Amino acid sequence: MNIILLSGGSGKRLWPLSNDIRSKQFIKIFKTPDGQYESMVQRVYRQILAVDPEATVTIATGKSQISALHNQLGEQIDISVEPCRRDTFPAIALAAAYLHDVKGVPEEEAAVICPVDPYVNEDYFEALQELWTLAQQGTTNLTLMGIDPTYPSEKYGYILPVDHKRRSKVSGFKEKPDAATAQQYIEDGGLWNGGVFACRLCYVLDRARDLLAYTDYTDLYDRYDTLPKISFDYAVVEHEPDIEVLRFGGQWKDIGTWNTLSEAMEEALVGDVRLDGTCANVHAINELGVPILAMGLRNAVITASPEGILVTDKAQSSYIKPYVDAINQQVMFAEKSWGSYLVLDVEDSSMTVKVTLNPGHRMNYHSHDHRDEVWTVISGTGRTIVDGMEQPVRAGDVITMAAGCRHTVIAETKLQMIEVQLGRDISAADKHKYELDE
Amino acid sequence: MNIILLSGGSGKRLWPLSNDIRSKQFIKIFKTPDGQYESMVQRVYRQILAVDPEATVTIATGKSQISALHNQLGEQIDISVEPCRRDTFPAIALAAAYLHDVKGVPEEEAAVICPVDPYVNEDYFEALQELWTLAQQGTTNLTLMGIDPTYPSEKYGYILPVDHKRRSKVSGFKEKPDAATAQQYIEDGGLWNGGVFACRLCYVLDRARDLLAYTDYTDLYDRYDTLPKISFDYAVVEHEPDIEVLRFGGQWKDIGTWNTLSEAMEEALVGDVRLDGTCANVHAINELGVPILAMGLRNAVITASPEGILVTDKAQSSYIKPYVDAINQQVMFAEKSWGSYLVLDVEDSSMTVKVTLNPGHRMNYHSHDHRDEVWTVISGTGRTIVDGMEQPVRAGDVITMAAGCRHTVIAETKLQMIEVQLGRDISAADKHKYELDE
Repeated sequence: MNIILLSGGSGKRLWPLSNDIRSKQFIKIFKTPDGQYESMVQRVYRQILAVDPEATVTIATGKSQISALHNQLGEQIDISVEPCRRDTFPAIALAAAYLHDVKGVPEEEAAVICPVDPYVNEDYFEALQELWTLAQQGTTNLTLMGIDPTYPSEKYGYILPVDHKRRSKVSGFKEKPDAATAQQYIEDGGLWNGGVFACRLCYVLDRARDLLAYTDYTDLYDRYDTLPKISFDYAVVEHEPDIEVLRFGGQWKDIGTWNTLSEAMEEALVGDVRLDGTCANVHAINELGVPILAMGLRNAVITASPEGILVTDKAQSSYIKPYVDAINQQVMFAEKSWGSYLVLDVEDSSMTVKVTLNPGHRMNYHSHDHRDEVWTVISGTGRTIVDGMEQPVRAGDVITMAAGCRHTVIAETKLQMIEVQLGRDISAADKHKYELDE
Repeated sequence: MNIILLSGGSGKRLWPLSNDIRSKQFIKIFKTPDGQYESMVQRVYRQILAVDPEATVTIATGKSQISALHNQLGEQIDISVEPCRRDTFPAIALAAAYLHDVKGVPEEEAAVICPVDPYVNEDYFEALQELWTLAQQGTTNLTLMGIDPTYPSEKYGYILPVDHKRRSKVSGFKEKPDAATAQQYIEDGGLWNGGVFACRLCYVLDRARDLLAYTDYTDLYDRYDTLPKISFDYAVVEHEPDIEVLRFGGQWKDIGTWNTLSEAMEEALVGDVRLDGTCANVHAINELGVPILAMGLRNAVITASPEGILVTDKAQSSYIKPYVDAINQQVMFAEKSWGSYLVLDVEDSSMTVKVTLNPGHRMNYHSHDHRDEVWTVISGTGRTIVDGMEQPVRAGDVITMAAGCRHTVIAETKLQMIEVQLGRDISAADKHKYELDE
């Protein structure tokens, strides 16, 4: 099947593990069958390929996630890059155009469009495959997945089918009702809308021709910042009379808060966390190199990352956003196309960073106007280029770079170094990039 | 007055702020009258001098506390250094010998002996002054302070006076009774034993002559590791028939657990800590450079330091010790005679440390067998000496030192540098010290 995974933007509800530059789908807290930790995006990708090894997976996302996607899924992953953030309709149209115009998928083929972050089992992807098959048959313009509600939630949209059968035509949609109304929907056979649907590529491309004057992928990509911010539901689904829904009764969890995320953790404790015997219903994730000790806590989540420390009552965790919005902390950890950096120390006129380059990768060739830098290689081998001069480096080597000096490092093996930045106005914006003639 | 402050050993009950090398009395969490933070030892020292500007203060402690005492109280502070840890009787005998033989205080003068870590107000030190005056008059061999009990505690020793007067002869001592017995003691006029007493120096020195064959300070110091481990209470107080007790009814708090410590904090939050509106009775101390956010917590203490993170129910906090004993974390922060160091990063073959030297101070001239080091100065000015060669250094300078190379740095202003240690077996024990001929 063709599957387009919509990988949404940054989120603060899972701070300190998610923030402006680190999205929740990249947090490695789930266990793989062989005992490693994996992120939501890794889990979903692994599950898709387990169900359909031939699946064509395309991820629709913004530029800021490319590095994390390559680091977590590999360089081969297909990404439909949104030049800026519009809503889901432009994103899905661009991804459909990418599949058709760039990857050469025929217009008549169907695709399943699905968020990247549901916490589900393989039966979910088996249902997606069924959805894809239905769409491929083309008896209906649009086929949705409807999730069997487990309680009258006020936070989801509801799909109202015309009958209670496993496959049914759709009579309407309702957004976030109150609990009593939700209960009535459920009694009438209403289903949660998980934002999953399948259709032929031509269906999306036709809507894009109508609404976005789509001619081809390049044109759409180039005009992307001028496209309207409009959701697929609003632009397409609500105007489509010919919709079918397929019920799904398996596990489906929307992991949007620490409370719901903790329910999905196979192990309550990740990292160096110790609980005394009087703790109950405590989940904790520790990304730091020092231990967490918890005593006498109940129904709580503790999370420590380079960005900060959260201790929250589980039920209270859904109210986190305004508190995180008020935090004006510089970003301490980031995944880059070449590896990652971790801020170790911040002083008035210096910043110390641990830089990790993946094997075969290199930074941009760049310079800074307002800071000097000192690199001390602590492990691995590679080459540095400083003002055009290349030299091999290994653990123990020190490279000093005055402001204005052009520099880069190329990792042969995994290479780590301590970078000391020195200057009055240290800023990520102080950077000039150059082409490198090797 | 002469006052000997007994500064006890390391404590784990206030982990992660106290540990094997950082004692609770050095944690800066109390507010001075002018709004700065001060430690217990700074608070007690300030209070003594406020009550008696002429007080002669001597601190009896082990070698490991000298740097912290100098950093917190100044270089002028008198310290009676115990070459190793024995119990309170040898420590008090050594301090009395130090006052008499080294500082020239006459044997007939009295001294007050007092733990360094009670959380009290100035009226406590006014009571100590009264105790000292009584001891100076010499009508009784030993004068104790008895603290008016506020509840029938099972964890303190009780002094039983012969009557209920403010000053009374003592009829006996009882250790840690059960609550019912404690209640009976209180009804009979019993008082908590806060470990405070006053006597003439000759009284202590006579006991030391009898029990430790004391001849002079140097002899006692040299033989210190052979002295018996015996408490002053056991060796002296329990055998002394002529004891008077002075009642003290002011504030006295024994700050031994996070629960009791939090009661003494003038401000509930120290450092970057944010609480949501549903938190109640939460105290938090954050020594890290990133924020702590707490939501929906009640009756809890949160503490984050370079050594680790504690989240505990207040009542539960008194059971912390076995959990901290089980933590085998290397020391991440330490005060040194010349300043401090903070471990920033630990990898298999490297360790990165931020070194801060106080103005006018220097490290030992030293070398390592098994590691190379790179210093990058990030602020301040000073001089380095590397294999005998001296050069001035300032922010941005880089010094590389191969294993075996002798090196030191002398701070002119406050000087900070990032030290990258490189080698397979990095250990604090890998150090040779040398005399420096300047």
